[in-house]
Amino acid sequence: MKALWLEDRQLSVRDIDRPSADGQALVRVALSGICGTDFELARGYYPYTGAIGHEFVGEVVEAGDPSWIGERVVAEINDACGSCEMCRRGHPTHCEARTVLGIVAHDGAHAEYVKVPLANLHRVPDGVPDEAAVFTEPLAAALEILEQVHIRPSDRVLLIGAGRLGQLVGRVLALTGAHVRVIARYERQVKLLSAAGIECVAETEAGERCWDVVVEATGSPSGLTTARAALRPRGTLVLKSTYRGEITLDLARFVVDEITIVGSRCGPFAPALELLERDEVDPVPLIEARFPLARALEAMEVAASSGAMKVLLEP
Amino acid sequence: MKALWLEDRQLSVRDIDRPSADGQALVRVALSGICGTDFELARGYYPYTGAIGHEFVGEVVEAGDPSWIGERVVAEINDACGSCEMCRRGHPTHCEARTVLGIVAHDGAHAEYVKVPLANLHRVPDGVPDEAAVFTEPLAAALEILEQVHIRPSDRVLLIGAGRLGQLVGRVLALTGAHVRVIARYERQVKLLSAAGIECVAETEAGERCWDVVVEATGSPSGLTTARAALRPRGTLVLKSTYRGEITLDLARFVVDEITIVGSRCGPFAPALELLERDEVDPVPLIEARFPLARALEAMEVAASSGAMKVLLEP
Repeated sequence: MKALWLEDRQLSVRDIDRPSADGQALVRVALSGICGTDFELARGYYPYTGAIGHEFVGEVVEAGDPSWIGERVVAEINDACGSCEMCRRGHPTHCEARTVLGIVAHDGAHAEYVKVPLANLHRVPDGVPDEAAVFTEPLAAALEILEQVHIRPSDRVLLIGAGRLGQLVGRVLALTGAHVRVIARYERQVKLLSAAGIECVAETEAGERCWDVVVEATGSPSGLTTARAALRPRGTLVLKSTYRGEITLDLARFVVDEITIVGSRCGPFAPALELLERDEVDPVPLIEARFPLARALEAMEVAASSGAMKVLLEP
Repeated sequence: MKALWLEDRQLSVRDIDRPSADGQALVRVALSGICGTDFELARGYYPYTGAIGHEFVGEVVEAGDPSWIGERVVAEINDACGSCEMCRRGHPTHCEARTVLGIVAHDGAHAEYVKVPLANLHRVPDGVPDEAAVFTEPLAAALEILEQVHIRPSDRVLLIGAGRLGQLVGRVLALTGAHVRVIARYERQVKLLSAAGIECVAETEAGERCWDVVVEATGSPSGLTTARAALRPRGTLVLKSTYRGEITLDLARFVVDEITIVGSRCGPFAPALELLERDEVDPVPLIEARFPLARALEAMEVAASSGAMKVLLEP
């Protein structure tokens, strides 16, 4: 089968052996989505060799439990052991022995088929098209903010960054009823948010030390600086993207202002699918382009261009 | 009157004008305590000229409200405006226009008399001797951790640092019923904690990625490194001391492990006095030495020596 393969920081579309279910589920991929982490992997963010890709929707074709066969599914990306301390505490996404689909020791979903544990599968409701379901994983990651931080309807929330993940984060934050504003870099990002009823604000107009919650979704040190300045004392800074290399902070000021910083990563799939089913979040306008898997390298280039939204691959 | 005066990073005991109450309270200081912040000021941590010192107990000798006269009191250190956004939200310690006793534009308590707003006064219960009441401010700062973070009886809590503030933090953490261990540097610190029923652990024995909450109270980058390694994924790191200069962090790891970082500073006086009255925390064994105010420079030297505990000044 075809797969987008990473080896020695080089990407290629190559033929690899189709996996067998081995008691798990073998899913024929219908669509997969290109994520920033895919670039980070190619840049050596984690050492990884294998098929990349962790956002997908597809149909189960083989399974240890035959009741799954024929089901349209999405799947959580962390393959947890189920028995370590973090698993037993109910945090399987932090399992110390986990593999991660297309990221850590587990061939990913930019491929014709992908093998995933049965426990990670979620049925896609009938009303949710593949084009929306393929956003389940990043939408769940956006929802993780609400799992971790209590955002009150009376809060003022500033989101910095309106890229692929930022767009979803903005839509999720808007559901809280809070006063949400977004600092976006590109006019297209502003328009996409505006069409979803979400207002942007220029960085120079955002005001300093007045936001209760600031979500940093740019992954850049300058985004972090803006976030810090915008946050009120006793406010909460959510780090919704990873940072390459080390970052230098004036921690004394965080202590004096009693800031809470929350790192935020993978989130819950079930409520993400629920929001998609009830059409509370519509990610489809975020689709930038669709490419056949055979042209995945071209697709990666488009996805990597400034301000690009979601690029999908079709095996 | 005599005061320990800071000017151009030079400390001296000098005679200054005794302040008048001007509708506020004039307190004759009975005892004041030397805190790490006093050294930080002398090292230029904040630009400040004036009498230093913010931990004290004394008797009101003049007051805008005469019912305070003759009362034995302690006083909160932040002089808030009462009308700004943070004051209206109930966070006067974050008032944007605040002065801070002995730290920001407000002559401090290493002096014969100190002037404080009536709103900042707290009566000291009869059963609490001056030697315990003088610890109210740092004990309140230790309690601030419990204001900000929900520490569960079933949590594993590691405290790094057993200096002046760390000793109080350890005693407060132990009240939660959590499994508390302390990494201490000096044998004396271990003995003081042990006498209070609190166990220490060697850094090499503490274990990695297994503590639910880690409180960093050393203010050193190495303490931060130890804290980071000890914390489990999804754990909470409390920064209970300020750091000089900028600190470099691998923020990506904080995001991947979804760590929460909480900066923690000044705390609530009323419960601190309550714990002292009920003898739940006994800070008196932490007194290292007592000096007359005239020998304050000598006292500062003793307080600055490695592993020194609380040094008190007596006007």
